[in-house]
Amino acid sequence: VGRGDVDLRAGADLRPEDVVRLEDDRVVLLDQRRLPDEVAELECRSSGEVAAAIRSLAVRGAPAIGVAAAMGYALAARCGEDLETAARTLLAARPTAVNLPWAIAEMRRSGSDPHTLAERSRELHRLEVERCVAMGEHAVGLFESGSRVLTHCNTGALATAGHGSALGAVRTAYARGLVEHVYVGETRPLNQGSRLTAWELERAGIPHTVIVDAAAGVVMARREVSHVVVGADRIAANGDVANKIGTYALAVLAAHHRIPFIVVVPTSTVDPVAMTGDEIPIEERPPEEVSARFPARNPAFDITPSTLVTAIVTERGIHRPPYERTLRP
Amino acid sequence: VGRGDVDLRAGADLRPEDVVRLEDDRVVLLDQRRLPDEVAELECRSSGEVAAAIRSLAVRGAPAIGVAAAMGYALAARCGEDLETAARTLLAARPTAVNLPWAIAEMRRSGSDPHTLAERSRELHRLEVERCVAMGEHAVGLFESGSRVLTHCNTGALATAGHGSALGAVRTAYARGLVEHVYVGETRPLNQGSRLTAWELERAGIPHTVIVDAAAGVVMARREVSHVVVGADRIAANGDVANKIGTYALAVLAAHHRIPFIVVVPTSTVDPVAMTGDEIPIEERPPEEVSARFPARNPAFDITPSTLVTAIVTERGIHRPPYERTLRP
Repeated sequence: VGRGDVDLRAGADLRPEDVVRLEDDRVVLLDQRRLPDEVAELECRSSGEVAAAIRSLAVRGAPAIGVAAAMGYALAARCGEDLETAARTLLAARPTAVNLPWAIAEMRRSGSDPHTLAERSRELHRLEVERCVAMGEHAVGLFESGSRVLTHCNTGALATAGHGSALGAVRTAYARGLVEHVYVGETRPLNQGSRLTAWELERAGIPHTVIVDAAAGVVMARREVSHVVVGADRIAANGDVANKIGTYALAVLAAHHRIPFIVVVPTSTVDPVAMTGDEIPIEERPPEEVSARFPARNPAFDITPSTLVTAIVTERGIHRPPYERTLRP
Repeated sequence: VGRGDVDLRAGADLRPEDVVRLEDDRVVLLDQRRLPDEVAELECRSSGEVAAAIRSLAVRGAPAIGVAAAMGYALAARCGEDLETAARTLLAARPTAVNLPWAIAEMRRSGSDPHTLAERSRELHRLEVERCVAMGEHAVGLFESGSRVLTHCNTGALATAGHGSALGAVRTAYARGLVEHVYVGETRPLNQGSRLTAWELERAGIPHTVIVDAAAGVVMARREVSHVVVGADRIAANGDVANKIGTYALAVLAAHHRIPFIVVVPTSTVDPVAMTGDEIPIEERPPEEVSARFPARNPAFDITPSTLVTAIVTERGIHRPPYERTLRP
C-alpha cells in the first residue's frame, strides 16, 4: 500500500505526490485502473512509459495527464532521450485534453537542462494544485446551504493530481457546510464515477450515492439535485466544453429542469486556439470497452455547447456568458 | 442448446414457444440472465418457481412476465395448489409492469379447471404475439426510408414472448426497407440492451451499434438518430409512460433535438386505473446491482410525462395526444 512515506490507507488524505511525482530516475503514479480494489503504484522509467501510462489510463484526468506529461518530459532529459521525440510521443498519447499540449509547451520553453526541467515540472504540479484550491474558493459562491450536487466522471485529486476541479469545489463547499449530498454517475464504460469518485468521497467522508448514468434525469425530476457540477478536458474560446461522454446529456437535462450547470477547470484546460467545440478532437476509444461481443461505438468525450453552461469557474473567478469575452486571459 | 424441438442456434428465428411455454407439468423459460453467453432453459415446476423466475429476471419484459404469470397460474391449478395463494405470489413478484396483474385478472375470470386454464394461458400468449405483429404493422407508418432508430432496454421477442413491441416494430419496418440502423443503449445496470437487444438484432441480421446510455445525446446531436423507439412497463390513462430507467432522459433529449419519441406497447400494458404516472409504483432494485462497494440507488424504472411522447402505438393503431381520449378503449 503505497511506497516510502506515501500513506494511502483508507481515511488518509490523498496528497498531490500520492497521485503523481517525479523521483530522481522515474515518474511514480497511483495506478487509477486498479482502484478502488487495489491501491498500487506504477513506476515509469522513460517518457515512453509515461506516455503508455497516459494512453492506458493508469493516470487520467486532464490536469493530471498534463502534470504527468511534464514529468515525463523532465524524465526524458534526465535519461538523455531526444527531447523532441519524447515530446511527440507524449503529445500523441491522448488527443482531447488540452492540458497535455499545454504542459509540453510550458516545458519546451524551459530549455533542456535536466535539473531545471525536473524543478519546472514539479512547479507546474504545485501551480496546478494551487489553481484547484483557488477554483474551489471561487466556486463556493455558487452553492447555498443544503446544496445537492450531481457530478460525472472523476474530477477529484486523482484527476488533477491534487485537490480536484469540480470535485475539489464540492470538497471546499462541503467543508463550508454548503453541500449536503453528492450523486455520482457511474460513468460508463470505465466507471470513473463508481470507482474513483465514490472512493474519493468515501475517504473525504462526504455523503454520496452512486447511480447509473441513465438515472440522472430522474434525480433531477425529483428535485434531489440542486447543482450539476463537472470538470472538462478542453474548453474552446467560446465556452463550448469537451468533457466525458454523457456530460452533454446532463447539460440538456439540467437546462430542462432549470438546474444550474457548472464547469470547474483550471485555465490550463482552456484552449484559446479552438474557437468552438467543433475544433476539439474527440477521442474514439476501443469499442470493446463498450461491448466485446457486438458492434459498438465508444466516443470518450462529447461537446456541450456554451449556451447550456450556467457558469465556468477557473482560478481567476466565476465566468458567465458571453464566454468569448469573460474567458479571455 | 435448447430442448426437444426447440432450435436456438444462431440465425434461427426465436419463436414464441422458445421464450416461454407451458408443458404438461412445468413452465419452460429461456433463461434471459444467461444470454448472450449461454442459451439455456429454466424449468419451473410450481407457481412459486415461476414467481421466482420473474423476480430474478430469468424472464423479464412486461408482456413476457404477463404470459409467464398466466402459465404459472395454470400450472398452479394443474399441481393442485391453492389458486388464490398462487395468484398473490405471482402478483408480488414485480410491481411496475401492469401486464402481470392484467394477466392474473384474465386467468381468474376463467375458473379453476386445469385444462381450461392451460388453454387460456396459451391463448393469452398467442394473442399477445398477435398484438405485437399488429403493432408492428401500424408502426411502419411512422418510419420513412433511411430511418435510424435509437432504442433502450430490450423490447424484442424476449420481452414480449414473441416478435417484440418496440423492437418488433423495428423488425417489421426493417423488413419493409424503412429502417437502416439501430443504436442500442446498453441499459445499465443489467445491460438488457447490450446483452439481449444486440443478440436479437444480430440473429435478425439488422445492422446495429451498441453505445453507453450516456452517449445517446451525442448520436442525437450528430443527427445519427431519426426516431427514438421504446416499449413500456405500464402506461397511465393520461399517456404517462413507466419504462426502464433512462427512458425519461431519452425523451427529454429527443424533445431537445426535435426527434420523434415513440412508445410501442400492447394494450395489456395500458393501465386504465392509474390516471397519471404518479400512481405507478416504481420498483427499487438492490443497490448492489449498481455498486457492491459504495452507497447506491437503483430505481429500475422512470416516468416519462405524456407531454414528451410523440405517439403511442398499440395493436389498435397509432395514438396521438391527448392520450386521455385517444388511449381510451
